[in-house]
Amino acid sequence: MLPIAHGISLRTSIDEEVAKLLELKAQLGGDDGKHQFVLKTAKGTRDYNPKQMAIREKVFNTIISCFKRHGAETIDTPVFELKETLTGKYGEDSKLIYDLKDQGGELLSLRYDLTVPFARYLAMNKITNIKRYHIAKVYRRDNPAMTRGRYREFYQCDFDIAGQYDPMIPDAECLKIVHEILSELDLGEFRIKVNDRRILDGMFAVCGVPADKFRTICSTVDKLDKMSWEDVKNEMVNEKGLSEEAADHIGEYVSLQGGMDLAERLLQDQKLSQSKEACAGLSDMKLLFSYLQIFQVTDKVVFDLSLARGLDYYTGIIYEAVLTQVGVVPAPVSTEAQNGAAEETVSVGSVAGGGRYDGLVGMFDPKSRKVPCVGVSIGIERVFSIMEQKAEASAEKVRTTEVQVMVASAQKNLLEERLKLTTELWNAGIKAEVMYKKNPKLLSQLQHCEDSGIPLVAILGEQELKDGVVKLRTVATREEV
Amino acid sequence: MLPIAHGISLRTSIDEEVAKLLELKAQLGGDDGKHQFVLKTAKGTRDYNPKQMAIREKVFNTIISCFKRHGAETIDTPVFELKETLTGKYGEDSKLIYDLKDQGGELLSLRYDLTVPFARYLAMNKITNIKRYHIAKVYRRDNPAMTRGRYREFYQCDFDIAGQYDPMIPDAECLKIVHEILSELDLGEFRIKVNDRRILDGMFAVCGVPADKFRTICSTVDKLDKMSWEDVKNEMVNEKGLSEEAADHIGEYVSLQGGMDLAERLLQDQKLSQSKEACAGLSDMKLLFSYLQIFQVTDKVVFDLSLARGLDYYTGIIYEAVLTQVGVVPAPVSTEAQNGAAEETVSVGSVAGGGRYDGLVGMFDPKSRKVPCVGVSIGIERVFSIMEQKAEASAEKVRTTEVQVMVASAQKNLLEERLKLTTELWNAGIKAEVMYKKNPKLLSQLQHCEDSGIPLVAILGEQELKDGVVKLRTVATREEV
Repeated sequence: MLPIAHGISLRTSIDEEVAKLLELKAQLGGDDGKHQFVLKTAKGTRDYNPKQMAIREKVFNTIISCFKRHGAETIDTPVFELKETLTGKYGEDSKLIYDLKDQGGELLSLRYDLTVPFARYLAMNKITNIKRYHIAKVYRRDNPAMTRGRYREFYQCDFDIAGQYDPMIPDAECLKIVHEILSELDLGEFRIKVNDRRILDGMFAVCGVPADKFRTICSTVDKLDKMSWEDVKNEMVNEKGLSEEAADHIGEYVSLQGGMDLAERLLQDQKLSQSKEACAGLSDMKLLFSYLQIFQVTDKVVFDLSLARGLDYYTGIIYEAVLTQVGVVPAPVSTEAQNGAAEETVSVGSVAGGGRYDGLVGMFDPKSRKVPCVGVSIGIERVFSIMEQKAEASAEKVRTTEVQVMVASAQKNLLEERLKLTTELWNAGIKAEVMYKKNPKLLSQLQHCEDSGIPLVAILGEQELKDGVVKLRTVATREEV
Repeated sequence: MLPIAHGISLRTSIDEEVAKLLELKAQLGGDDGKHQFVLKTAKGTRDYNPKQMAIREKVFNTIISCFKRHGAETIDTPVFELKETLTGKYGEDSKLIYDLKDQGGELLSLRYDLTVPFARYLAMNKITNIKRYHIAKVYRRDNPAMTRGRYREFYQCDFDIAGQYDPMIPDAECLKIVHEILSELDLGEFRIKVNDRRILDGMFAVCGVPADKFRTICSTVDKLDKMSWEDVKNEMVNEKGLSEEAADHIGEYVSLQGGMDLAERLLQDQKLSQSKEACAGLSDMKLLFSYLQIFQVTDKVVFDLSLARGLDYYTGIIYEAVLTQVGVVPAPVSTEAQNGAAEETVSVGSVAGGGRYDGLVGMFDPKSRKVPCVGVSIGIERVFSIMEQKAEASAEKVRTTEVQVMVASAQKNLLEERLKLTTELWNAGIKAEVMYKKNPKLLSQLQHCEDSGIPLVAILGEQELKDGVVKLRTVATREEV
């Protein structure tokens, strides 16, 4: 055996030597004597180029002006939190949290959503009522599917109303906001599904689901937008051990859709009306629809008993907006919806979601004082994707600057005059550009206008300077004045 | 020895048991049966409350509209980069980089500034010319001095022009931009110091500084804004081993300040004119001032030979803007200036800085293709501090929302009517608020207007509803129509 062992050890030590040499070579640099950088962004992340930024800015402006129209303030929180602030908030998805390296000092993690930092902010500052929006990036070590708009770094765009108010008024305003934003973004037809955690729990109770299975059955129901009822039932019965009878009961309820009429009918439902919880949810649903009528948004809102957003911390109404013209939107993209944590679903066309979470702030308060909250999150990454696709499909060019005038000249040696005129324009608040060349060609100056969509060009020449005038040309029509 | 050893081991095991029990207790929660969260943000970071956000938004708007007036595009990059992208860019300050924990996959670090990601972006996308701004947060594990506006998470606000152009035109535009922004922000009197890395190096050479001491002597010169010449000289001679003669030579030069005239005079200077590098710098300085005259900004710009920004990668012109009315600004705050990495100084009143760095992009390019760059960074955290102080000192209230009308009523049972009117206002694009209460008191509705600066209140009453009118009251004057 010895020779073989020796052989192995020899081979091992040769391998080791080779590895050492390779490492040394890597340290010294590649063949050309330079270290080869890997030129890429981190996995699951991307840069935004100027065109993408122009689209992003337009989307943000639409959304922010809606939030402002509704009187919202805005806050910002750090990109990382104490690790323990995030601990115990996201169930098994906690494994997706990015931790920072322990370099001495506090243990930190990148924020996973904007809701937990919001709750921490409220508790820390003892704020009991606020209407705020927060648009910022969050981080998840998820499997990226970047072609489908699913990243490890992505924006969330949250609007929340915290405070003790009369029931369903803030909840209705959240839905009004979703309605306004989706209409203004012009993404095509949409529908807003609403349900209530209490109605779901009541339904599970009267259908004979054991209390400790509510959450897991709930997350199976949540898959109804992607799976057939047969598959969902199969998962309930065969994977989660629910009785077939209970599953069939559930099946009858979750096929129901309607409006205020459905809430009224279910309040009379022999079985469901036995659950106090369900009745409370159904009465509030009626109230909600009365406010939605006043807000003129019932055309898009559907009470849908199959809606079952997975997050543990919802306590009342829940909702989700979906695009219904799926043809316009080829690939399904993840919902980056309200607090989109545990068991977030990849619904086809889902572009907003949220609900009421009355218990979360209390988790941070040393005296467990609760601050009722209701909020909505716009799935803004999905909106970006759609807008980018639309921009690409459209003939119209996306401008990445707002320059109004290019100061140009056809003749040589007019740099000083070009700079003087540009200065005058800048000082007058006009967006103007000039080429950083002593003697640029007129053609290249005009080409730049074409490329970047600058509508006007001011052309200087010896004659015009003598006459004290400037020739102004409309780039598109070549008209001159 | 045995009993003692046994004693130690006994004590150790008791300690261990106690530790285990304490841990168990911590897991179970504190005395009240709940886990006590530490309610704080990570060290060196802060939340922005709505008032701070309102100020931040105002400052951003001023700065961004200046960047846009000058035809800049914007980009965004991820908050973290591959660790090796940042390696070797920040000298000994690399220890301040936040690393992410190795959770499998790539090794990542939080960005330390916006310049290195910008250079990586250009090289990666083979972009050879762009004029872009980027406003985003960067991260440094520095000793925070939060009362002085120095954080571990802070904004940088960079404007850069990349591309091969005729000399000094983009450089002059950067200074024009600093001039415009500082004037518009209305922070008080300011001065922009300019110098050139080549003039500094030439000066060091003719003064007899050994080439390998250029950088370290440069960083000592950089302290002249906070230290007396005697102390600076002392550091050069006694700490850095420079000859007293050389130090005295340097002392003569670095006391010089002027404009184009000084550049002309130094071009005739017997000693300095022997350095080709210095002459190139001085000729460009003359050219720069000729453009600055056209841009009408020479009133604030000073050619100052003592300016010596510490960063290694500057290759040409460097500049720094300082507030000169120091009385207005009590505490010195860190400069978060252009690429503010190694040896960044805490200048009193420094609010912007930058320079030309023609070599950085080449460090990322596999073929070392250079892309000349010049840029400026606005010290926006310092600007925030000043604006916050001003807002506190001023009698005027900072509004955190933009609500124009509050829909109120003096009588009970008018919730529906209030919501209807609010809906009409929202649908007409008017920023409106309504209280989420069935029967709020008129006084509390008016109080809310006072608190949040809402200028108008629409008051509904039975009589007005009958007459089909609305009473509109100006909150400040109590006038009604």
